Amino acid sequence: MQTSKESQDAIHRIDPESSEEISSRFDVLVGLLENGTDQAITSHLQGFHHSDLADAVGLITGNLRRRLLGLVKIELDPDLLFELEDHLRHEVTDSLSPKEVADVITEMDSDEAVQVLEDMDEHERVEILSEVPDEEREDIEVGLAYPEDTAGRRMQTDFVSVGTNWTVGQTIDYLRDEEDLPDEFFDLFVIDQDSKPQGVISLSRILRSPRPTLMSEITDETQVIVPAEMPQEEVPLLFEKYDLTTAGVVNAQGQLIGMITVDDVMEVAREEFEEDVLRLGGVGEENVDDGVIQASTKRFTWLLVNLGTAILASIVIGMFDATLEQMVALAVLMPIVASMGGNAGTQTLTITVRALAMKDLTKYNTFRTFRKELIVGFLNGCVFACLAGIITVFWFSHLGNANLLGAIIAVAMIINLVVAGVSGVALPILLEKLKVDPAVASGVFVTTITDVVGFLAFLGLASIFLL
Amino acid sequence: MQTSKESQDAIHRIDPESSEEISSRFDVLVGLLENGTDQAITSHLQGFHHSDLADAVGLITGNLRRRLLGLVKIELDPDLLFELEDHLRHEVTDSLSPKEVADVITEMDSDEAVQVLEDMDEHERVEILSEVPDEEREDIEVGLAYPEDTAGRRMQTDFVSVGTNWTVGQTIDYLRDEEDLPDEFFDLFVIDQDSKPQGVISLSRILRSPRPTLMSEITDETQVIVPAEMPQEEVPLLFEKYDLTTAGVVNAQGQLIGMITVDDVMEVAREEFEEDVLRLGGVGEENVDDGVIQASTKRFTWLLVNLGTAILASIVIGMFDATLEQMVALAVLMPIVASMGGNAGTQTLTITVRALAMKDLTKYNTFRTFRKELIVGFLNGCVFACLAGIITVFWFSHLGNANLLGAIIAVAMIINLVVAGVSGVALPILLEKLKVDPAVASGVFVTTITDVVGFLAFLGLASIFLL
Repeated sequence: MQTSKESQDAIHRIDPESSEEISSRFDVLVGLLENGTDQAITSHLQGFHHSDLADAVGLITGNLRRRLLGLVKIELDPDLLFELEDHLRHEVTDSLSPKEVADVITEMDSDEAVQVLEDMDEHERVEILSEVPDEEREDIEVGLAYPEDTAGRRMQTDFVSVGTNWTVGQTIDYLRDEEDLPDEFFDLFVIDQDSKPQGVISLSRILRSPRPTLMSEITDETQVIVPAEMPQEEVPLLFEKYDLTTAGVVNAQGQLIGMITVDDVMEVAREEFEEDVLRLGGVGEENVDDGVIQASTKRFTWLLVNLGTAILASIVIGMFDATLEQMVALAVLMPIVASMGGNAGTQTLTITVRALAMKDLTKYNTFRTFRKELIVGFLNGCVFACLAGIITVFWFSHLGNANLLGAIIAVAMIINLVVAGVSGVALPILLEKLKVDPAVASGVFVTTITDVVGFLAFLGLASIFLL
Repeated sequence: MQTSKESQDAIHRIDPESSEEISSRFDVLVGLLENGTDQAITSHLQGFHHSDLADAVGLITGNLRRRLLGLVKIELDPDLLFELEDHLRHEVTDSLSPKEVADVITEMDSDEAVQVLEDMDEHERVEILSEVPDEEREDIEVGLAYPEDTAGRRMQTDFVSVGTNWTVGQTIDYLRDEEDLPDEFFDLFVIDQDSKPQGVISLSRILRSPRPTLMSEITDETQVIVPAEMPQEEVPLLFEKYDLTTAGVVNAQGQLIGMITVDDVMEVAREEFEEDVLRLGGVGEENVDDGVIQASTKRFTWLLVNLGTAILASIVIGMFDATLEQMVALAVLMPIVASMGGNAGTQTLTITVRALAMKDLTKYNTFRTFRKELIVGFLNGCVFACLAGIITVFWFSHLGNANLLGAIIAVAMIINLVVAGVSGVALPILLEKLKVDPAVASGVFVTTITDVVGFLAFLGLASIFLL
């Protein structure tokens, strides 16, 4: 059988045909979990790549998941544990003894071990760490000493460093003989006597240079040094801007204490992007796997804020109840002005929040951006003022003052779209200055402003000129 | 001076202090562009990393930018040209002769040359390619032959491949002697006689193995093969899932024709994320640098669609004008129901669109997700029904039927939040099935549904029970 053959050499070939294979292998797994023997399941699991197995654990629920986790934890693969989603990983580590968890994390790279440990309670973490051998424990503790979401937490403390006066031959011999090196690395560091980084050299350069070449001759032109306290969200920007594969991480004294590699950075970048998208959509850290109660409570806060702002808009409308009583057409039309403003504001906001996240919006172009949004709001305002005005005139032609009503909706539209543009830029910038993530709160604020201004402008003008 | 020293050895050290240095170097550049000599500018530019220089070009405008571009294009650095934003890159290539552009792109990796060429007109591209030396031209044409936004367009046709029966020593000697290798690579491929990939080996493994080791002994356990036609957005998912640094790209016959490396994938991932965020926000491919006219026209379409849907909602309100005339409180309260539905719908939508993009939503959990959103909508609906009902009863206590009004807003709230949850899941899934990017259109549709259902439920119930 193919499965048992694969389990022998453990080669996973993932190619165009394999997604069907993975999915049929998953179906077999579900069948076995329902009525197979433990042995049949364990042998079937050999055919899974640890990443696919982690996905499978996330897709099944209830008793099947419990049975599967019970089986995989017997000889727990560190890669599998690391790939599991946070809450599943907790379920597994909670059911193991501190010694068992310690054995698994000892086999991990230090950055992975830090990520497994950082979500745990203080006392749980201390218990596990006390079972980890000294050398690995020290590496892990270096990472844990830095605040969450910093480069220090994401760095690997295992890295390869050589002296400036080493030769290529000496370096290759060192790499062959030294036991304690990271599993995988793309670059090595040249350091001075004080452990301060002097440069980076890619492995391809070393392999392509003759043995007598000095390290100093082949050091890369760009050396990017990341302080361990740097917020992790800034790291992907550096990697992308300077096309890095590895960056050295330094402590406050400027000494090299770890490295961050591009594969870890990709994960950080994805997490940070996700966070921004979800925050812009008014949801916190939620994913599709979350249960009903988790999802309800995570969304509750923003719905509550939205209820508050919706009531604010209603209060504005309530100020004009006498006007509305005299002319119900105003009630029919008023959501159009508010909705267009909300939409235009969200557009500007989205652009601004992304530009801030990518550090594309700096002191050099802030004023220009402001002016642009003012003009864009005015231009689109004029276009949609005409459209809304014309539609109104025809729709309410049975009223005596349809033309005036059309003019009023047109003016309100221009006002609201200009306000939408300006607040769509100003609010995120203001929040960033106040050190609040602009993705979190700008959306609700901008639509509140456009709702209030929209109703106020339209109903206010109507009460002055129509009645 | 530090700048001239840096220009000598061309080492760019980017560390915690350098962002101020980069920004003061930029200020000096602006000053020189205003009243310096060409020579002073050119010599100042030596101190810039090409990525910082590309940023600088994007930040200045008008005559200063024209002067700067005029100077950099004299001895154009291929890295700089590649890093420039699309419209600036066009400005530069348009002002150069086909031969000059050909010289620059010949120095690039094939994937970079493809990206520079793919945005050009057909005839412009043909003219330039005719000036590129045969070997490089063939590499570029292989990439250009695949459709836009596929793996084939992003692959590098330069890669290192060895036979299964080669030894480590033989491989190292080959790498040292062979001239025509990519600038930078992390892995090499083992291929059979038919050029079909048999495995991947990381450079660190090669460096760490004794010279007599056979390639077949140190091949990586996971080999991911990307067909050249694969949509580029799927590539980052594979890289992240299987922790890859390099993936081989194969043609329809399964032969290795190129490779994609993790640094390029990071760029693809960022582009795809950006696209999703901007689409969710109702803007196309816009960035903060776009001019007024570009920005206005890009946003126009969605504003127009929004005007249509807003009018639809107004028509629904118009159906109840007799009801509104009798009780203006309904006009005051109706936006609350619509706004809460829109917000809840957007939350569900955001989660669903992200889950679809990450391929987290599959046939195995679609039904579960549906059921979950139904329950979440109902639970949050009940909570906010109570809140909105109580507020209404107090707010309109001067009316005789405030209790009934409160009950009506409560029921309408539950209905709308359930509808919001269900449509927030159903619409993106439906669009995905119809091969439309769910990020593009779901937002407008979901808020249209919640507006219409919100007004209909609230005003409909009011017209039945209140009057």
